[in-house]
Amino acid sequence: MSGDPSALLGRLSLNQETVRQWSLPELADGCARAGVRGVGLWRAPVQEYGVRAAARLVRDAGLRVTSLCRGGFLTATDPGERAAALEDNRAAVDEAAALGTDTLVLVSGGLPAGSRDLAGARERIADALGELGPYAAERGVRLALEPLHPMYAADRCVVSTLAQALDLAERFPAAQVGVVVDTYHLWWDDTVGAQIARAGGAGGTPSRIAAFQLADWVTPLPAGALLGRGQLGDGSVDLRWFRRRVEAAGYRGPIEVEIFQPALWARDGAEVLAEIVDRFRTHVG
Amino acid sequence: MSGDPSALLGRLSLNQETVRQWSLPELADGCARAGVRGVGLWRAPVQEYGVRAAARLVRDAGLRVTSLCRGGFLTATDPGERAAALEDNRAAVDEAAALGTDTLVLVSGGLPAGSRDLAGARERIADALGELGPYAAERGVRLALEPLHPMYAADRCVVSTLAQALDLAERFPAAQVGVVVDTYHLWWDDTVGAQIARAGGAGGTPSRIAAFQLADWVTPLPAGALLGRGQLGDGSVDLRWFRRRVEAAGYRGPIEVEIFQPALWARDGAEVLAEIVDRFRTHVG
Repeated sequence: MSGDPSALLGRLSLNQETVRQWSLPELADGCARAGVRGVGLWRAPVQEYGVRAAARLVRDAGLRVTSLCRGGFLTATDPGERAAALEDNRAAVDEAAALGTDTLVLVSGGLPAGSRDLAGARERIADALGELGPYAAERGVRLALEPLHPMYAADRCVVSTLAQALDLAERFPAAQVGVVVDTYHLWWDDTVGAQIARAGGAGGTPSRIAAFQLADWVTPLPAGALLGRGQLGDGSVDLRWFRRRVEAAGYRGPIEVEIFQPALWARDGAEVLAEIVDRFRTHVG
Repeated sequence: MSGDPSALLGRLSLNQETVRQWSLPELADGCARAGVRGVGLWRAPVQEYGVRAAARLVRDAGLRVTSLCRGGFLTATDPGERAAALEDNRAAVDEAAALGTDTLVLVSGGLPAGSRDLAGARERIADALGELGPYAAERGVRLALEPLHPMYAADRCVVSTLAQALDLAERFPAAQVGVVVDTYHLWWDDTVGAQIARAGGAGGTPSRIAAFQLADWVTPLPAGALLGRGQLGDGSVDLRWFRRRVEAAGYRGPIEVEIFQPALWARDGAEVLAEIVDRFRTHVG
């Protein structure tokens, strides 16, 4: 499949947050016009539009929802906060199922205020996965643990490497918990190639790769470090190397472009999407 | 030793950049007054003051130079740039020797412009260590490879974990190449405890721990991500855990506080140092 550019383009999915200037109808229409067949959606705009209406909208546009962002934030120690997080994650699973996607991306959560206990936070995530995994799998949804770049370890996600995500995921059935391979978060890690092979089931185990997301790494980082992702090809990441590695690990699913960057949001959405398609051909295909 | 607070305080070293509002004479005087016996120096202010004069100044104040920052930036592909970098690193070794420190901290360098080849950059570092190591060891100086936080992989240092630093260091004699354990860069890594043990010579090999540096991790990160280090105790790092780990690995050398933070630079240097001593007692001892 990797040898056929048109087949590869058929796997391209546009994460909604990449073109947040677009409303949901604009997104559905814009993707259909550009020949992009997949979209990754976010809970807030979907809830605002209405979950069922959003599901109908993307289905009518001939689009597949490749993932829903995001559940997670499972590291609270306070029992009330913890119960609320679990309840919110069950709602996220329901929304994913309603949208027809089998992938709910989880951003696991950072350290509670004042805590320095990374190991404890990681164990609370494991406990939560144990509670949420069966609920998700019964609804045809897999929890997709996303390791985030280590610069987010304190405030967003204490799962910082693909190895850590797999250590957690492998405690549960593969139908319940998978992992996200996102180039932005993982590009710097010299063990990521080996870990992608592990995720793909190198030992004869079922694949854990639930999603494959692309963004490039550009510097300098903006304040807060959240909105500085680069357009494909603008930065340091060997995107094609990543695609080849996930394919060598057996992954043939959607390839989602997820770039948080105000400069892209300030432009015409169709122009941004056309540029993404072009960059995708050049740097990924 | 860890049970004796006064002995521990005797190991405290103040990295010059933490109080960059201080001139070198102010630094020497301020440390002597505060009972701090070690300083980590930087090349630029030392060169400005004069290397020999700086060596005399700190010696006369009864201070030990625990490290010199920094050599490195060894990833250039251009032959002219590469030769210049090696020459500059030899000069840094000479300066370290003149200052009477056995530790030259190396920030290895990021990706050359337009490159995405992390593995190649890492090999060029290894080649450079092979050239510089004997030169340094002959002068009683050890090259101290510092793994920097992965958020600096593109533009400052492609060596992002202690495991990577050790993989590189272990290719060379321990008298030539060691590693820096800096809490700010390594705190997020769930393998760092095992790697500290490895660095200490768990397998009966000589210790590679050339320096132990402290800063806390605080968020949000400022633009550029360079000047956002936290005062000890203000952030997410379990500093005492780190101290115990390096001590369990056999390290009994200086403990250097290196915080880059404009808010500290805006204050009276003596007040900042007093606060550091206080925080050191509370969060490290």
